[in-house]
Amino acid sequence: MIDHIDEIREDFPILKREMNGYPVDYLDNSATTLKPKAMIDEVVRYYTYLGANAHRGDYEMSAQVDYAYEGARKTTAEFINAARKEEIVFTSGTTESLNLLAMMITNQLLHEGDVVLSTETEHASSILPWQQAGYDKKVSVNFIPLTKEGRLTIDNFKKALEDNPTTKVVAVAQVSNVLGYTAPIKEMAKIAHEKGILLVVDGAQSVAHMPIDVQDLDCDFFCFSGHKMCGPTGIGVLYGKFELLEKLHPMIFGGESNARFYKYEALVLKRTPYKYESGTMPIEGALGMAAAMRYLKKIGLENIHEYELELKQHFLERYEKELKDKVTIYNAENGCGIITFNVFDHGKLIFPQDMASFLSSKGIAVRSGQHCAKLMGDLIKAPGTVRASIYFYNTMEDIDRLVDALKEASFENTLDIFF
Amino acid sequence: MIDHIDEIREDFPILKREMNGYPVDYLDNSATTLKPKAMIDEVVRYYTYLGANAHRGDYEMSAQVDYAYEGARKTTAEFINAARKEEIVFTSGTTESLNLLAMMITNQLLHEGDVVLSTETEHASSILPWQQAGYDKKVSVNFIPLTKEGRLTIDNFKKALEDNPTTKVVAVAQVSNVLGYTAPIKEMAKIAHEKGILLVVDGAQSVAHMPIDVQDLDCDFFCFSGHKMCGPTGIGVLYGKFELLEKLHPMIFGGESNARFYKYEALVLKRTPYKYESGTMPIEGALGMAAAMRYLKKIGLENIHEYELELKQHFLERYEKELKDKVTIYNAENGCGIITFNVFDHGKLIFPQDMASFLSSKGIAVRSGQHCAKLMGDLIKAPGTVRASIYFYNTMEDIDRLVDALKEASFENTLDIFF
Repeated sequence: MIDHIDEIREDFPILKREMNGYPVDYLDNSATTLKPKAMIDEVVRYYTYLGANAHRGDYEMSAQVDYAYEGARKTTAEFINAARKEEIVFTSGTTESLNLLAMMITNQLLHEGDVVLSTETEHASSILPWQQAGYDKKVSVNFIPLTKEGRLTIDNFKKALEDNPTTKVVAVAQVSNVLGYTAPIKEMAKIAHEKGILLVVDGAQSVAHMPIDVQDLDCDFFCFSGHKMCGPTGIGVLYGKFELLEKLHPMIFGGESNARFYKYEALVLKRTPYKYESGTMPIEGALGMAAAMRYLKKIGLENIHEYELELKQHFLERYEKELKDKVTIYNAENGCGIITFNVFDHGKLIFPQDMASFLSSKGIAVRSGQHCAKLMGDLIKAPGTVRASIYFYNTMEDIDRLVDALKEASFENTLDIFF
Repeated sequence: MIDHIDEIREDFPILKREMNGYPVDYLDNSATTLKPKAMIDEVVRYYTYLGANAHRGDYEMSAQVDYAYEGARKTTAEFINAARKEEIVFTSGTTESLNLLAMMITNQLLHEGDVVLSTETEHASSILPWQQAGYDKKVSVNFIPLTKEGRLTIDNFKKALEDNPTTKVVAVAQVSNVLGYTAPIKEMAKIAHEKGILLVVDGAQSVAHMPIDVQDLDCDFFCFSGHKMCGPTGIGVLYGKFELLEKLHPMIFGGESNARFYKYEALVLKRTPYKYESGTMPIEGALGMAAAMRYLKKIGLENIHEYELELKQHFLERYEKELKDKVTIYNAENGCGIITFNVFDHGKLIFPQDMASFLSSKGIAVRSGQHCAKLMGDLIKAPGTVRASIYFYNTMEDIDRLVDALKEASFENTLDIFF
């Protein structure tokens, strides 16, 4: 339960800003999240006190940075309950994590005719890297059929595995960034592992909104970004089971990842996870993300999840009474704080971009478009959607402002804002 | 000329800290640089005011972020005098820039038997990516011979090209991170281009210390990192001539880089440089780096370069009088602020790591080891070196403290610090 929302909001300096003359009503949390003071202070502490590079110096400041950086790895391991901190590789974000995995796994473990299974609601980062890495090698990406609402079910997963007997990798998001449905990762892992299939999970939209236990899920890889969980941009995580990280050979080389190398001989790599961390890493990124994790833990991931559902429930109640005739919601029952919808004026769609601009004029930040999941078109018969995504610093009043604005929206006034 | 060093030092909050009880004497600027308040403030401005993601929203905050982010690209283009801002691709740093180039160029433009020329003093990031990318394709990395001091000369470059007629790429640092010699990039570009050879420059150690004009140098690619020029970690630049960036196909895919994609059809990419920027970019990184560039420009890159040479000259003068019998300098004449040396006690080497730890006990931060350039061993007959690297916030007193400490160093007292 979150019963101290005013206190929480005090932690986020940006909530004092206005947008178009209104206090900002930030409902674009699936794109990126706002930053609490504890996180900002940690980044500033690196700039004003720690200052040195990591793993490179032999002086006190540098040792302090190493300690802080490896501490961030430990905090991250604990946050997702990894078996050991060496299972945490820092990257620049989910996109890099997923791309590196797609290249490493395709190049090093897959063969012609192998299949990678994904779904049509995936973020581009979960499909394109596999398609591109697999192109020359003739490894194809096929799709698990979804229910008509866009859900991934175990039955459909089993069916897809039967239809694709050469499946070697399943790459899916735990929570879809468009519709917000949660995939049954734990059950999928069990079925996949019985067939020797690797399960790669895009956790970008889940890790900040529910407790994650990678050992319980038993997925092989789990990727996420700092900036979607109150941390900095430019930092992310590639979690992998230790024996898999040991088995794979990195894609990126440079200082730090190699123990030694010779002119014409093989490269000797450092141990996992350092072999994956070439060059100067985003140090204040890792420190800031760890501070954000500590902050989220203090509030409690269960509490965050419940509170988001409460806010959403409030939206749905008002929707039933006041918006039902003009707004279509595509994912009312998704069990998370992502609300994807379109608004109609006398039955005609108000173009999602226009709708978002109209909401902006009222100080409300939402996203419109295809949300980087461009295969969705078959599922939602519209040129895009509007997405409002809730986080724990939002309030009932934020939701009320959205509902009130939607009530007011019409062709006429969504166009007015351009003139 | 820098005549306001006290004012400059006020801009760096970290210079108020102590290390082992002494005011910090930071001489590890080749590893990373300290951060001025203007840069820190810009990062904090993103966290406390701008807040949104870039290129993704349809609301005012998001448009403000786009404006700031594209402004950072413009600042970066101006800083190195790129012909247009679309020649600037943001990456996570020099290492990623060089790795992406090595993979793209090797996979897309090179053929079996082609040669990439580098040198033995290069940072691992300038050799390993080419070796690894070229391995399967039988593209080899060969080395331009150096003078006995470790310099790259035009004569040797021409000779290497004659010896390697299938050279297609030359990949070298403008300033070596171990010895600090400057390669004659402009002349090399002219010769390379006459033979249709691409020139890839690692600018990590040069861009913060001298004015850079990529159009005048006429290199094809130029890579560098924010954190070595008073900016954040986790941000860097891949500059490429526009037509080359247009020609290459990216390695990393995800949201933002694609205009659209289809289930079983080809990917349609966005235009250059956006096709190279998948996923959420290090936004505050780009903003912070741009702020650092504005700060450096205000001081003046020529002034910085001259001032570093003045400080080094002061070191060399005292060295001649007071240290010559116990210290060997490997690069007195390199024309930059990197001093690479070893200390001897009655003719026997004090192990570089021990030396660095001893200096740390006096509040002096230097680096020891191989400085990520592990082929150097043939050139310097020692298991490593100590490297002191100067920047414009250092003072004559910083140099005096280093000299005084070196005078005092002996086997006995460098070991003492461990007990």
